[in-house]
Amino acid sequence: MIIVKELGRHFIFELFGCDPKALDDIKEIEKAMEEGAIESGLTIVGRVFYHFSPQGVTGVLVVAESHISIHTWPEFGYAALDVFTCSKDTDPMGVFSRMAELLKPASNSVVEMKRGIMKEGET
Amino acid sequence: MIIVKELGRHFIFELFGCDPKALDDIKEIEKAMEEGAIESGLTIVGRVFYHFSPQGVTGVLVVAESHISIHTWPEFGYAALDVFTCSKDTDPMGVFSRMAELLKPASNSVVEMKRGIMKEGET
Repeated sequence: MIIVKELGRHFIFELFGCDPKALDDIKEIEKAMEEGAIESGLTIVGRVFYHFSPQGVTGVLVVAESHISIHTWPEFGYAALDVFTCSKDTDPMGVFSRMAELLKPASNSVVEMKRGIMKEGET
Repeated sequence: MIIVKELGRHFIFELFGCDPKALDDIKEIEKAMEEGAIESGLTIVGRVFYHFSPQGVTGVLVVAESHISIHTWPEFGYAALDVFTCSKDTDPMGVFSRMAELLKPASNSVVEMKRGIMKEGET
């Protein structure tokens, strides 16, 4: 039997019905992402946070284990959150929990994608 | 009938069998991503490029339309490339083509995910 193994795990979160004010607060979003990254056991090596006019935030933390990104649409109460990690020790729920605490989504979903699937023996 | 509409399109590329030397060349990767972003009609607003020891590159371009990211594993000939855009005018193949020209994957795949799906009338 061939057992597949992946190089990275990519968690794709959808957050609906969020607090519009929190979705537009770039400072609090950066703080929460940083705290969530640490909570998830990630090591931050770079960052870009950008506030759009008239509203909306994009934030990216580049981590030693890959990246975390968020894009927010305050006018629709929506945020797209991604946690991509090459570490088997990362608990992505640390990031999600901290962001959900800030953004207060009414509903959410997550899909985990395996990235870089290799056959046994290749990894 | 309810027609669904999305706020963003997220293209998830898997590149296998790439040139290991190109996968470790941070300068050429940054140049190709920048050229690809422009080719795809994206507007760059921020960037982080990071070279890992002993090898591997992470690169993120934050664009007005969302983001582009790449993570490379030269030791496995693999790159994970993401193009997330909220613009209906973005052609993600501009980024992919430029990166493929540099990295020369033997095989590749792409998945398009709709992000922030709203019911008609909500968007």
